[in-house]
Amino acid sequence: MLVECVPNVSEGRRPDVLAAIRDQASAAGVRVLGVSADPDHHRAVLTLVGEGERMLEAAFAVAAEAVRRIDLRHHRGVHPRFGAVDVIPFVPLAGTPMAYCVELARRLGARLGAELELPVFLYEQAATRPERRNLADVRRGQFEGLAARLAGGDVPDFGPSSPHPSAGAVAVGARGPLVAFNAMLGTADVAIARAVARAVRASGGGLAGVKALGLALPSRGTVQVSMNLVHPERTTLWRALELVRREAARYGVAVTGTEIVGFVPLGALAAAAREFLQAHGFGPGDVLEQAYWGAPLTGAGPDPDA
Amino acid sequence: MLVECVPNVSEGRRPDVLAAIRDQASAAGVRVLGVSADPDHHRAVLTLVGEGERMLEAAFAVAAEAVRRIDLRHHRGVHPRFGAVDVIPFVPLAGTPMAYCVELARRLGARLGAELELPVFLYEQAATRPERRNLADVRRGQFEGLAARLAGGDVPDFGPSSPHPSAGAVAVGARGPLVAFNAMLGTADVAIARAVARAVRASGGGLAGVKALGLALPSRGTVQVSMNLVHPERTTLWRALELVRREAARYGVAVTGTEIVGFVPLGALAAAAREFLQAHGFGPGDVLEQAYWGAPLTGAGPDPDA
Repeated sequence: MLVECVPNVSEGRRPDVLAAIRDQASAAGVRVLGVSADPDHHRAVLTLVGEGERMLEAAFAVAAEAVRRIDLRHHRGVHPRFGAVDVIPFVPLAGTPMAYCVELARRLGARLGAELELPVFLYEQAATRPERRNLADVRRGQFEGLAARLAGGDVPDFGPSSPHPSAGAVAVGARGPLVAFNAMLGTADVAIARAVARAVRASGGGLAGVKALGLALPSRGTVQVSMNLVHPERTTLWRALELVRREAARYGVAVTGTEIVGFVPLGALAAAAREFLQAHGFGPGDVLEQAYWGAPLTGAGPDPDA
Repeated sequence: MLVECVPNVSEGRRPDVLAAIRDQASAAGVRVLGVSADPDHHRAVLTLVGEGERMLEAAFAVAAEAVRRIDLRHHRGVHPRFGAVDVIPFVPLAGTPMAYCVELARRLGARLGAELELPVFLYEQAATRPERRNLADVRRGQFEGLAARLAGGDVPDFGPSSPHPSAGAVAVGARGPLVAFNAMLGTADVAIARAVARAVRASGGGLAGVKALGLALPSRGTVQVSMNLVHPERTTLWRALELVRREAARYGVAVTGTEIVGFVPLGALAAAAREFLQAHGFGPGDVLEQAYWGAPLTGAGPDPDA
């Protein structure tokens, strides 16, 4: 059962800490495809691929190391977070059923609650109640608001009903492949990035498959529309970027560049190419490497929202 | 030694003939990734991948079957051609040296000349003189002008100095991966397609990596700018299409769609994505499948024009 796991940890500045976290994943016998760190976000995204049972061990080891090394009481970054190991999603690959990833999320959640004393919130496909499907809702109030929220009766799925003193809480979930896609704007005014983010995201009346935040990037002297494309073969990189460009243009601002955090599935890249190249019949199977290597890793999995 | 071979045969209408040709390649022990046939071009492109010695056998068997089955005396199509098996390029994959493909081209040429009695012209990296590098020059005058050309002293690299009566001649070469990319225009006026083709291709002052022809597509009631991108990581699909759109717009005409003939290497797709997504650091290694599977098949090979 091949799965991807994409732990997001609240550390984007100390390479030694990230190396230690990465080593924990490797030692558990999964492949670390990459680590994307951002100093302004003060956050890093690990992309792990491997067999399910080993991934469970790797995800636990990553979480344990993050809890040991990261103290949120001294953590300032522009990206929302409520945990040292903030989010741990499992993604089915190569035909693995989503239900298998939901089960992994529940088993990991139980261990993180019992052994690391983290309050655990299950989200997306693993959510135990509708209001916990959406990560932004689960994380609302961030680390700083967590104690009050838990005291107010918001009971986690696993673990204690009070925050871990230094590591906060963790969201563990199962989801389809998403693309984390950031567009930099030619302005230092974060209000414009926020306005564009509101306009392009689904919750603001924008594109169905887009979540977005406007963030300042002090170290780069610019601002960014930070997006998650949650159905990247339906709402593509291209369509999202086109709308960002249009909305930013209303303020006389241009997109100066973009970046992908982690990896883009070939199916998502092909879907974007179908649009930008006007190649109406184009798909992953038209890529030489795909034709040579075989079936895509993602894109054929179950899609409960379809 | 992994190589790709992309024989172009002058048959785009009879599925039984294409199946017979395809079967010859399979029987020789190479993989047939696909066959792209176009009835207006009256031409098909086979994409074969395999080990070099087997590919030599496969290419010979494909050529022999095409010579048996295709009679150019009765062949009318919009794409230029001078042979039943018109062009046979070898493309190095996975680090195979270009010199190895040049050697394959020479060995295949010798066999085609001796055993099938085809005049053989070596082209591109396999060319034996500068004026035969460019395929369009090698094929000038097409099948109908071939007898006069050979009689005029244009001596082929192998084979007889007169055309094969029904199968004409063949161009055999070695080259890097190219992308065959066709843009359909919203007009039936082939003069506009020709004007756009002239403007975008290198020989007309357009883009360095682009060869282009304007062709009518009677069966679709439209016209097409048929392009070869010969350095698709430098002159990308995106840049070529943008220029086609601009040039067509000068005539009040839009691009209605595009198609890729054969396959696009992941490196070429990533290079286009880098441009259209403004993702200045993007590359094939940012694609999940690439990161998982390993090195790209193309893109790292020797580039004598660089």
